Amino acid sequence: MPSVDTARFLADLYTLREIGRFKTGVHRPTFTPEDMESRRWLCARLEECGLTATIDGIGNVFGRHPGPGPHLLAGSHIESQNEAGWLDGALGVISALALARSGLAVDVMAFADEEGHYGGFIGSRSFIGQLEEAEIDRLTNRTHGKPLRQALAEAGLTGLPRIQVEPGRYRGFLEMHIEQGTQLEAADRQIGVVTGIVAIRQFRLVVEGMQDHAGGTTMAERRDAGLTAVRLLAAIDAEFPRVCGPRSTWTTGRITLEPGAPSIIPGRAEVLFQLRDVDMAVIARMEAALAALVQEANRRERCTVRLEPVTLSIPAPCDPGFQAALAAAAEEFAPGRWTHMPSGAGHDAQYLAQVMPAAMLFVPSISGISHHWAEDTKDEDLAMGLRVLAGGAARILAQ
Amino acid sequence: MPSVDTARFLADLYTLREIGRFKTGVHRPTFTPEDMESRRWLCARLEECGLTATIDGIGNVFGRHPGPGPHLLAGSHIESQNEAGWLDGALGVISALALARSGLAVDVMAFADEEGHYGGFIGSRSFIGQLEEAEIDRLTNRTHGKPLRQALAEAGLTGLPRIQVEPGRYRGFLEMHIEQGTQLEAADRQIGVVTGIVAIRQFRLVVEGMQDHAGGTTMAERRDAGLTAVRLLAAIDAEFPRVCGPRSTWTTGRITLEPGAPSIIPGRAEVLFQLRDVDMAVIARMEAALAALVQEANRRERCTVRLEPVTLSIPAPCDPGFQAALAAAAEEFAPGRWTHMPSGAGHDAQYLAQVMPAAMLFVPSISGISHHWAEDTKDEDLAMGLRVLAGGAARILAQ
Repeated sequence: MPSVDTARFLADLYTLREIGRFKTGVHRPTFTPEDMESRRWLCARLEECGLTATIDGIGNVFGRHPGPGPHLLAGSHIESQNEAGWLDGALGVISALALARSGLAVDVMAFADEEGHYGGFIGSRSFIGQLEEAEIDRLTNRTHGKPLRQALAEAGLTGLPRIQVEPGRYRGFLEMHIEQGTQLEAADRQIGVVTGIVAIRQFRLVVEGMQDHAGGTTMAERRDAGLTAVRLLAAIDAEFPRVCGPRSTWTTGRITLEPGAPSIIPGRAEVLFQLRDVDMAVIARMEAALAALVQEANRRERCTVRLEPVTLSIPAPCDPGFQAALAAAAEEFAPGRWTHMPSGAGHDAQYLAQVMPAAMLFVPSISGISHHWAEDTKDEDLAMGLRVLAGGAARILAQ
Repeated sequence: MPSVDTARFLADLYTLREIGRFKTGVHRPTFTPEDMESRRWLCARLEECGLTATIDGIGNVFGRHPGPGPHLLAGSHIESQNEAGWLDGALGVISALALARSGLAVDVMAFADEEGHYGGFIGSRSFIGQLEEAEIDRLTNRTHGKPLRQALAEAGLTGLPRIQVEPGRYRGFLEMHIEQGTQLEAADRQIGVVTGIVAIRQFRLVVEGMQDHAGGTTMAERRDAGLTAVRLLAAIDAEFPRVCGPRSTWTTGRITLEPGAPSIIPGRAEVLFQLRDVDMAVIARMEAALAALVQEANRRERCTVRLEPVTLSIPAPCDPGFQAALAAAAEEFAPGRWTHMPSGAGHDAQYLAQVMPAAMLFVPSISGISHHWAEDTKDEDLAMGLRVLAGGAARILAQ
């Protein structure tokens, strides 16, 4: 088994951290100058390892191994959430680079916009042939509204072809990632062999009332869209524990009242709400409860509520053979300090899993923090993750 | 009694409506080019009537009657809420202009930023000597954050002195305004003689939790600031009806979750909340209930809640003698079609009332709509309002 250079791997991670640095994390939203700089930096590192590096028409970075197969594909995403962590995504990309550097027959990818600044997972979805031009035409940045087409043009990607997965080339896909939760840390484990990836169901709740003057409109006659939204969210908070599973999560990330002025009764409210679980039966129960609460709101409130699906993914199991290879490597390098576990977050791997065997490896997140610039993992855990990933990859390629 | 030119008055209102027109309303936020254009337009109209017109250092437009006293002061505000109504404020300014045009000894004012794009009532507060330079230094635009100093500079007002009320010059202050509610329309009345102006108590609720990943953080461990805000607002919605008065209003105009991304648990939430009543005892009960609910949230929730006062005004009674003069004019011109009533909205008059007798006159709002571009009032009601205002002003000046 080739030895993997953990020191170089850590050095690469720290170098990448300086591109778009924000406090102890990074601010590298998709297609910003910092993000494109990181993609070009990655291409240079891939070339140094003897891979042919390309940035395709959706911004995916692809490093192609020159030698004969069998091959594995490995990678993750290189952009970040706003003012967030240095390891989320970067870890999977740099560990894949390290595998290629060690001589393993691994192609390396950084899939564009897993984080969804324009559209979640558009890079991996493009790679597996699930991203239509019409969707690219439609997408805009969720923070500032810039059209994706414009961002691609500013990044110099207009007109470039989009790379598709080459049928039959890969045994499968591997992605290492930080856990983004507290289970490994709480159980004093260094390694998580992921069993499957959660389904993420994103919705927009749109409430329509009547904008009016806060002082001149009586409480009895007003149609306050913000209040209807608040009462619905409070009802969801009360009801979901009755129908959820042991690992379900549900989150309201954004509430927008229009017009949003202190003395104006909101005439419109918009809520971005999502729920997650690994079990489709649990998902179905939660979504039935959500629909019922929306229907009840329409019956009782003086405003109307619309429930609009935004994105709906399905759970993705990790390949059992790949899990076994990773588990064997974990037991070799970190005996007794690893566990099986599901992923509560969505990852590019769940899309790759639709076209090839896929598996993921987790390392601990200190205090479970992620999507925050304080996100971190101990160097020794990062290095152990790489060793286990390389050991698992070598076993898979040797089969 | 001089006759007042209602046709010219209506023509002026319609002309002013074209400055910053938005659908059937106007978008003339304070110190925008359209707002400054309206102020210069007003100066020209004042000069045509023989008044000396000035725009002062805070943007107040002041038209000074050249003749001997006794004088009245009359006016309102000329800027608008965002994409809102054509009469809110404009009616009081143009009716004051019409009084001056008719030959009455009336000074005319358009007080800057009654609507609070930078700071509510800074124009009238400046005029009565309650606006410090330090406060101007501090204020920023509530929508886009531009510093007030910068806006004043861009409007060409830097270095201009701020006009103060001349002691002893005025019998008092009159302001005509649209009702912004439905009482006059519901009772089929044309005229409202206002008895007093409501206290407006504005607060900021700041909730601090922990930003984290929506999928990787269990429901049990997360500290979701948005959820704590929602539950507190739902509790306020349930509790306030128990302690409020018959005319109380309370309103949440804006909710902001940070960072506001769909897959991130909000680590911070900010709510702009206000309550109104004419009775300070009722205000005290509602504020005690608010403080108690915040304290309870701090006890029960996993996030902290801070209650910060933003602005706290007190109720302002209208001068009984002025009310009698307006009532007599109302009975003369609109017999049986007027009523006494309180004002549910704050107005510049409540600040003028601190330094001189003040009174207000209301005309109906069609369907009670205000702070919305559909705001409107029938021409015949606008004209009647002017007749009654002029009649009342003449009676006051003749005393």
